[in-house]
Amino acid sequence: MRVSEFDDLTTKREVEIIKIKDNLTSLENDFVAVEKPFTIFVNDIEIATLMISPDFLYELTVGFLISEGIINTIDEIIDIKIYERTLEARATTYEDKTLKQSLLNKRLISSGCGNAPIFHNVIDSIKSKKINNDFSIKASDIFLLMDKFNKSSKLFVETGGVHSAGLANAQDILYFYEDIGRHNAIDKVLGRADLDKVDYSDKILLTSGRISHELIAKTSKRAIPVVVSHSAPTSYAIELAKALNITLIGFSRGKRLNVYTNFDKIS
Amino acid sequence: MRVSEFDDLTTKREVEIIKIKDNLTSLENDFVAVEKPFTIFVNDIEIATLMISPDFLYELTVGFLISEGIINTIDEIIDIKIYERTLEARATTYEDKTLKQSLLNKRLISSGCGNAPIFHNVIDSIKSKKINNDFSIKASDIFLLMDKFNKSSKLFVETGGVHSAGLANAQDILYFYEDIGRHNAIDKVLGRADLDKVDYSDKILLTSGRISHELIAKTSKRAIPVVVSHSAPTSYAIELAKALNITLIGFSRGKRLNVYTNFDKIS
Repeated sequence: MRVSEFDDLTTKREVEIIKIKDNLTSLENDFVAVEKPFTIFVNDIEIATLMISPDFLYELTVGFLISEGIINTIDEIIDIKIYERTLEARATTYEDKTLKQSLLNKRLISSGCGNAPIFHNVIDSIKSKKINNDFSIKASDIFLLMDKFNKSSKLFVETGGVHSAGLANAQDILYFYEDIGRHNAIDKVLGRADLDKVDYSDKILLTSGRISHELIAKTSKRAIPVVVSHSAPTSYAIELAKALNITLIGFSRGKRLNVYTNFDKIS
Repeated sequence: MRVSEFDDLTTKREVEIIKIKDNLTSLENDFVAVEKPFTIFVNDIEIATLMISPDFLYELTVGFLISEGIINTIDEIIDIKIYERTLEARATTYEDKTLKQSLLNKRLISSGCGNAPIFHNVIDSIKSKKINNDFSIKASDIFLLMDKFNKSSKLFVETGGVHSAGLANAQDILYFYEDIGRHNAIDKVLGRADLDKVDYSDKILLTSGRISHELIAKTSKRAIPVVVSHSAPTSYAIELAKALNITLIGFSRGKRLNVYTNFDKIS
C-alpha cells in the first residue's frame, strides 16, 4: 500500500478583491478556499469525481470508498496510488464483486456539501449496523468538545469557505480535517481513523455542517454511537438515526444543544 | 406539457426533542426540514436522484435539466410528468442526442449542498455564455436586496436546515425558493424563470450558500450577469466568473460585501 508523500497541497489562495463597507470602497487581498476536481478509480473503473479541498487525498479516498460501501474495510485494498499532479486516486481491490455496472447506475446524488454518490442501499445499512452498546456522554463534555472543535478551524477562519469534521472521545478531539465539502471533511476524518483501525464504539463524530441522511449512513458504516453538529439535521437523518440507535445532536452552540434521538445516552 | 397541481408538499415536520441549555433540560417540539429522494427520468433513462425539500418539483426538474445541459431550453421538452406519490419526474424530449451513455458515465459530483451531477463540460460553458452587456448595479441596491432576501426565508427560520435562492432585478426579488440543497433552491428559481422565459440580462442571482464553480456554471447557462452570496466563493468559482465576465459578490451581510470579479460593474 502506498501513502501519498505530499499531503499539504494548497487549500487556499490569495486574491485581490474590492471590499465595500457602507460608502467606503477599498482594494484588499483576501484568502479564498481552493476548489479542485479529484477523480477516484477502482480497478480502473472511474467511480466519482469529487470537488474538494486538495489535501489528504489518501485519507479521503479510503474514507470515501468505505463510506460509499465500495469496500467494507481497508483490508480489501491491495494498493491505492495517489497522483497529485492530475488529482487522481487509483485503488486496486482483491475482489471486484461490488463494482458491477448496475451499482454504478444506481448513484444517489446526495444533498450535502462535498457530495458523494451514495452507492449503498440505505435499508441494508440499517440492518447491518445498529448501535448496540451502552456508551453515553455528558452534555457538558459535548460543550467542551465543540468549543475545541470551533477553535480548530484554521482554513475556515482564513477563507470562510470550508466545513470541518472531527472524531473525538469524551475528552478530546482525535482527528480533525477541513474541506470545501462537508462530506469530504468527514471522509478524510473517517478514512484516517479507518486506516488507524480505531475502535469507534466510544467515539463521537463532530461536524460543522447540516446532518442529512448520507452523513448518518457514513457514520453507521463505522457504528459510531454519537453524531454532533453545529447545524440542523433533516427529517430523514433523524429517522435513520432512530432506526440505528445513533444519538443525534444538532445546534450544538455554546452551552446549548438539541438531542433528536436516543435521549437517554446524554446525561 | 403538464404542471404539477400540488406544489405545497410538506417540507417541514414536527419532532420531539430534548433541549439542553446550561444545566436545564426540557422536552420540546421543534420543526425539522424534510429530506426526500426525488428521481428524474428523461426519455425513460434515470438521470439522477436528488435529495430535496419536496416542493416545486416541476420547477426543480426544468431548472435541473437546463442547469446540467441535458436540454438547452424549455422548448426541447415535449412533456414533464410529476409523480408526487413516488417523487419522480418523467421528462420527454424531442431529440435524444444529449443522453448518450458516455455522458451519463461522465458525471462530476459537485461540492455543493443539494447536489447535482454536473454533466456539461465547464470549458464549453465558458465558450458559450460570456457576459457581454453593460448592466451594472449599486452596492446600496444589493444591501437592500439581501435584506429582503434574508427576511424571505420562512422555512429556514422554522427549521434552520435549508438554503434559499432568489432572482432579482435592481429593485426587487422576483423569485424565491428554499431547499435543503443549495443547488436545488437555485434550480427551482431558475426553472421557474426559464418557464417564464425571463430576460436574464439585467438580473441578479441571490443565494444563501457558498459559491462553488457549479453554481457559476448554472448561472452562466442563463447568462446572468451578477451573482451575490451571503457566503464565500471558491477559487474555481472566481476563475470561472472571471473568464465569463460574471460579477461575483460574496459575504454580502448588512452593509458590507466583497466583490471578487468585474469590479467596474458595481458602483
